[in-house]
Amino acid sequence: MFYTDNKLQFPVRVEQPDPRFARALQQAIGGVEGEIRVAMQYMFQAWGARGDPKFRDMLLNTATEELGHIEMLATAVALNLEGAPLSLQEQASQDPVGGAVLNGMCMKHLLSSGLSAMPVDSDGIPFDMSHIYASGNIAADMTANVTAESTGRVLAVRLYNMTNDPGMKEMLQYLIARDTMHQNQWLAALEELGGPSGVFPIPNSHPQEEENREFSYVFLGFQQDGSEPPRGRWSEGQSIDGNDSFSARPMEPLGEEPTLGRARPKSGAQAEQL
Amino acid sequence: MFYTDNKLQFPVRVEQPDPRFARALQQAIGGVEGEIRVAMQYMFQAWGARGDPKFRDMLLNTATEELGHIEMLATAVALNLEGAPLSLQEQASQDPVGGAVLNGMCMKHLLSSGLSAMPVDSDGIPFDMSHIYASGNIAADMTANVTAESTGRVLAVRLYNMTNDPGMKEMLQYLIARDTMHQNQWLAALEELGGPSGVFPIPNSHPQEEENREFSYVFLGFQQDGSEPPRGRWSEGQSIDGNDSFSARPMEPLGEEPTLGRARPKSGAQAEQL
Amino acid sequence: MFYTDNKLQFPVRVEQPDPRFARALQQAIGGVEGEIRVAMQYMFQAWGARGDPKFRDMLLNTATEELGHIEMLATAVALNLEGAPLSLQEQASQDPVGGAVLNGMCMKHLLSSGLSAMPVDSDGIPFDMSHIYASGNIAADMTANVTAESTGRVLAVRLYNMTNDPGMKEMLQYLIARDTMHQNQWLAALEELGGPSGVFPIPNSHPQEEENREFSYVFLGFQQDGSEPPRGRWSEGQSIDGNDSFSARPMEPLGEEPTLGRARPKSGAQAEQL
Amino acid sequence: MFYTDNKLQFPVRVEQPDPRFARALQQAIGGVEGEIRVAMQYMFQAWGARGDPKFRDMLLNTATEELGHIEMLATAVALNLEGAPLSLQEQASQDPVGGAVLNGMCMKHLLSSGLSAMPVDSDGIPFDMSHIYASGNIAADMTANVTAESTGRVLAVRLYNMTNDPGMKEMLQYLIARDTMHQNQWLAALEELGGPSGVFPIPNSHPQEEENREFSYVFLGFQQDGSEPPRGRWSEGQSIDGNDSFSARPMEPLGEEPTLGRARPKSGAQAEQL
Amino acid sequence: MFYTDNKLQFPVRVEQPDPRFARALQQAIGGVEGEIRVAMQYMFQAWGARGDPKFRDMLLNTATEELGHIEMLATAVALNLEGAPLSLQEQASQDPVGGAVLNGMCMKHLLSSGLSAMPVDSDGIPFDMSHIYASGNIAADMTANVTAESTGRVLAVRLYNMTNDPGMKEMLQYLIARDTMHQNQWLAALEELGGPSGVFPIPNSHPQEEENREFSYVFLGFQQDGSEPPRGRWSEGQSIDGNDSFSARPMEPLGEEPTLGRARPKSGAQAEQL
Amino acid sequence: MFYTDNKLQFPVRVEQPDPRFARALQQAIGGVEGEIRVAMQYMFQAWGARGDPKFRDMLLNTATEELGHIEMLATAVALNLEGAPLSLQEQASQDPVGGAVLNGMCMKHLLSSGLSAMPVDSDGIPFDMSHIYASGNIAADMTANVTAESTGRVLAVRLYNMTNDPGMKEMLQYLIARDTMHQNQWLAALEELGGPSGVFPIPNSHPQEEENREFSYVFLGFQQDGSEPPRGRWSEGQSIDGNDSFSARPMEPLGEEPTLGRARPKSGAQAEQL
Repeated sequence: MFYTDNKLQFPVRVEQPDPRFARALQQAIGGVEGEIRVAMQYMFQAWGARGDPKFRDMLLNTATEELGHIEMLATAVALNLEGAPLSLQEQASQDPVGGAVLNGMCMKHLLSSGLSAMPVDSDGIPFDMSHIYASGNIAADMTANVTAESTGRVLAVRLYNMTNDPGMKEMLQYLIARDTMHQNQWLAALEELGGPSGVFPIPNSHPQEEENREFSYVFLGFQQDGSEPPRGRWSEGQSIDGNDSFSARPMEPLGEEPTLGRARPKSGAQAEQL
Repeated sequence: MFYTDNKLQFPVRVEQPDPRFARALQQAIGGVEGEIRVAMQYMFQAWGARGDPKFRDMLLNTATEELGHIEMLATAVALNLEGAPLSLQEQASQDPVGGAVLNGMCMKHLLSSGLSAMPVDSDGIPFDMSHIYASGNIAADMTANVTAESTGRVLAVRLYNMTNDPGMKEMLQYLIARDTMHQNQWLAALEELGGPSGVFPIPNSHPQEEENREFSYVFLGFQQDGSEPPRGRWSEGQSIDGNDSFSARPMEPLGEEPTLGRARPKSGAQAEQL
Repeated sequence: MFYTDNKLQFPVRVEQPDPRFARALQQAIGGVEGEIRVAMQYMFQAWGARGDPKFRDMLLNTATEELGHIEMLATAVALNLEGAPLSLQEQASQDPVGGAVLNGMCMKHLLSSGLSAMPVDSDGIPFDMSHIYASGNIAADMTANVTAESTGRVLAVRLYNMTNDPGMKEMLQYLIARDTMHQNQWLAALEELGGPSGVFPIPNSHPQEEENREFSYVFLGFQQDGSEPPRGRWSEGQSIDGNDSFSARPMEPLGEEPTLGRARPKSGAQAEQL
Repeated sequence: MFYTDNKLQFPVRVEQPDPRFARALQQAIGGVEGEIRVAMQYMFQAWGARGDPKFRDMLLNTATEELGHIEMLATAVALNLEGAPLSLQEQASQDPVGGAVLNGMCMKHLLSSGLSAMPVDSDGIPFDMSHIYASGNIAADMTANVTAESTGRVLAVRLYNMTNDPGMKEMLQYLIARDTMHQNQWLAALEELGGPSGVFPIPNSHPQEEENREFSYVFLGFQQDGSEPPRGRWSEGQSIDGNDSFSARPMEPLGEEPTLGRARPKSGAQAEQL
Repeated sequence: MFYTDNKLQFPVRVEQPDPRFARALQQAIGGVEGEIRVAMQYMFQAWGARGDPKFRDMLLNTATEELGHIEMLATAVALNLEGAPLSLQEQASQDPVGGAVLNGMCMKHLLSSGLSAMPVDSDGIPFDMSHIYASGNIAADMTANVTAESTGRVLAVRLYNMTNDPGMKEMLQYLIARDTMHQNQWLAALEELGGPSGVFPIPNSHPQEEENREFSYVFLGFQQDGSEPPRGRWSEGQSIDGNDSFSARPMEPLGEEPTLGRARPKSGAQAEQL
Repeated sequence: MFYTDNKLQFPVRVEQPDPRFARALQQAIGGVEGEIRVAMQYMFQAWGARGDPKFRDMLLNTATEELGHIEMLATAVALNLEGAPLSLQEQASQDPVGGAVLNGMCMKHLLSSGLSAMPVDSDGIPFDMSHIYASGNIAADMTANVTAESTGRVLAVRLYNMTNDPGMKEMLQYLIARDTMHQNQWLAALEELGGPSGVFPIPNSHPQEEENREFSYVFLGFQQDGSEPPRGRWSEGQSIDGNDSFSARPMEPLGEEPTLGRARPKSGAQAEQL
């Protein structure tokens, strides 16, 4: 069960409203790197967490934090839309550069939301929940969370570099810091789950003798001329999970040309296929 | 540029066709954990890779490998659909348990693809390319790849446990092994990029003095009663990136209640909002 | 800013787990009539609310309530998936009727979420955020909320009639009651905003002398033979907004056949169109 | 069965073509507030209407009307795209403000449709049919229609305020008037179905003694500090459905912390979860 | 402008309602091969048609016909859902084969539409309007229509083979016949536009001297070993457009390895990429 | 199985980077007329091809070619994004026309991909795999391929006309030439399958005596006044499949008004519908 106090987690201040920055901020709300994604991902991971409940509780706390981040960003979008042009004429009467504002806006900010935030990305595309990764495997979930916070911090840094509004920079400094923490937090959870050699390969509950071990630690090359594939840490030394050594070699096909035979009558195929 | 030899990377054999397992296999083709995702993700990461070209070349090789995995799975789906019921009557004349086959099938296998594979998941939902993560940050991309292969191997293990067809189990043993390698491969790339202390926080090109350091390494709690949040590796000891120490504390709101003021005339709001 | 106490708003109990009811419950989580929709809709309406802040605060409270409803339903889904078949064989060994369980399940409950809830509907389709209506017009938003709670209660009643598990029926009795309140709540807000004659036509800030009043209160018929359209309250008596009287008549086209002329060179049209 | 006479329901005239207004008009075609939505929604409601056929016939007439509205808007889009720039160079040679036209256009108008309308919104996003609400409950459908016409009229007013082309303003005055009628029409249908006390709570066929009456008419607060929630018409006086009185109080959790127990072997979880 | 007479274009009769056939029929309503697609595609092609208006008028007539086909199918779906199980218990008490009905249904027919048709496919996925092809090139549009009617007739034949209900077979015999006509109709339009040598390559308004003629009529092979590609009509004889002769040869890369250089500072890349 | 040599199929050169042309090129990558579509469509058609394997092999070769086209275009996008503005300020300091660059960009090129290509269209909308047509009927597939290459070449011509960068024009001349070939190639395949009279109506395996022949070759008119529909090749002369003669006539409804009767108790309908 959840509660609110109506307040903002961190102050949101806009000195120079810019409808185009409002559009850019939408990526941090409804983009695949955004805050709806992490809030909902951590929620569903928590609600499906089996095993030690400490992970469930941690996930629930951070999910709750992220809801407040959406709220901050939604407020920032609305504040950046103050004074946005409501008509093409209003627009054209301005100076040339400013005159381009309406072109650069998310037009749905004007037409659909009445100068408020929407659960969409910077191109106006609604977030879809297929991006919520909650696999039932706690370690796979943690890797998904590292990814979410890594792409999230990359995005926040790009937004930070895009603006020079002091209020927006201050808000983003907070959000970037939280992304730093959350990257570390999910890595810490992986450490608590056993670190690289304990966690991987995910799922660690599947016995490796039931996989085809000949191919478990070899980097396969697919160069057309059969030459060696590019070398790196992935082709020599101990594997990261500590269970074997890396090697590398060009791959050759082990199967034949597949053939499906004729189509069946009444299956809607062309007569020539029967 | 790409080439083919029309052959399968690994043999695909089905002893007991099962249209319901065909449906389940679709998750490994067009699900968010599936092979279209990794093939296309590694392609786009390669095509956008800036910096040391060895990562680009490695990505391109593995992307090319994954295309062959889609091909294997598509063949497996078609073979599992051999003999699937084409009519409700054909269905009903069978024994009760077998009689349920049509109910458990992906109906589009019958209606849309003519008993062949489709780029959809196990519920018939088409894959959409928003799941291709290629961020322009090579380390963030590697974390996304670890996630993809972790959820991918979880899925492959579940499919393996779902069937007892010897041909299908053999094919999945190969795919599970490749997922083992690929998890290790992307972790190895992260090691080559500097390991946890060199890579994180992502992007490591952003100066940490420009984030709000007060909040960079503290696990914040959002318990309604202000009590301490759940403790773990994430709340004490050195941070995983090695830049600071973890701590933990309940959060309190730092911002006020946000207020957007009145709506503007001609903005489509209700008169009471103006 | 938000808080949690980790507890459930109302007890969730399942006596007879049924994976097919788990699938049905997904509609109440990620269907367009479901709880993600209302939680996020009320959130975004609150964050974009301009004018009297009492509406904003009310919206925020109910949004927070709905988050807890998702949590209840997610728990109910996971509990209904206890004991679900993990393999086709496990399935086939059961009695014929029970043997159909795997056919009727959401296969992603097995393959993707590890027997937990997902933010998808009863056909496994992810919720997409285009269904969040937050228009910037407080009255339009209230009508959207009446709709959401009306379709939501219809769904909850159908789920209630579908099961006879005592725990599930008790949970649904609570959720149905809350939908009753919320239907009344949004209607009450419309009353507070002026009732039918004060609220409609939405937006009431647009001067009606700037619409084509000849067509503002007439029910137009489009019967092929030019006959009178079906009569009802909508074709006679005072209009609901109190501004005019209803009438009815067959419509005739007022415009000509539209013609777009020739295509432009270099526009990619066929030569015959130029 | 349907018929056409190739003519426009109302004249469509554009004096000053503006490709950016063409883009804005797309919201009224393929946006969630647009005409495809209402045309298809009323069609499917009609085709699924059970009970008194007068509602079915009324729905079918208005559905047919809305088809003609899409036609009008599609014509308006094509006319606004006359003279749109076909190349970046054509663009750059113009004056600075006009030079921004290509930036503000929907690029698919140029690349995909050859300067014609598309079934997409103002950001080029295709309409998807999940927005067609046809619930099988005639009253719930009517509330959905009030919502559709309320958000539709808000959009039409915004478009009206955005342009000063006399032809476009005239067309929009007609469409705004029709939205006025249709808001009233669906409200009238609700009145015919019994008005607030007869219609609500929807579905009125479910016996209220089978809901948890303790929670049916109380506004629940979720303030973190347990304080009273914001008061209004929703917290006092008779409920709108006339069945009880409103009250208000802070909510406390009635359920315990949910616990899902351990994961099952072979379910793809991590070993630590078993 | 459009009209209706409320009647069905062709009688719709169901002798043995089957909720699973209702689900299958959904593919013909909201599948990519279905009737919403053709109705809307022909509408938008008509509304954007430039050049000789006879094509526009023909398109509009057939678009109007297809609306009536959706109506027929929607009626057929509702009739097939008569008597569908409303509860899991009702289900379980039946005989084993019949007991599978609820498993094979589209669950949203029960939960969302109240036993009526929806604008979704046979897996419950809503139709999305990106499938409406209206390119602004009349010949390209005609090819898209041939495709739509070809896949449409394949689907209708599969549905015909799936059922043995006399009423449904009769309805499908009508729809299959119309698909026969429409395939021929669009082919006839292509003949009227000049036939293969006049129409192709589409767009025929682009001067072929501005394409790289060395590659305009050669079938390129991409076999890994550089062997000849499979031969057929496509590798010898006059080209279908009559402008040249077919040939075939293995392809070799004409470009070098692409290199994007270093990432830019402040672009969110990792430091190692700068 | 697939291979790569890391090289480009054809040189990709950009003399004057233009971020807006990068956005336009996205349509050729991830638009419905783009290269992901054809690559994946030919792949899935090949993998599901039943009957003479020469079609399978041909499809596989061209699918492999198209992968290299995506690679070329992705490279072109990245090169066009060199020097794109990273901030709103950088933008504003430029000359007015150039100053509009950021407005016309795909903002996700800056925020999500770090100045690289994405699998999205020119409005930033991700490609979705429902556009992959692989029907199990080889002739229907060929018509879908003609459509894909027709709309593809229309798009390529529009892009060619949009730019005057010599490198980009050269690349597009190659791609336009390949589209010329591929249009001819799929038409040649249809010729090999029997030409119009052998191929149509698709599927040709369905006996035409099982369709309602009265309606198989008649162009039906739906003019409101019952007048004759527009005449053309489609209304007279031999049908294109050679099986009959075309005729034309106005249509009249053959069915009655459909009626669904009352709703069932416990189906969630309103009491008035029961």
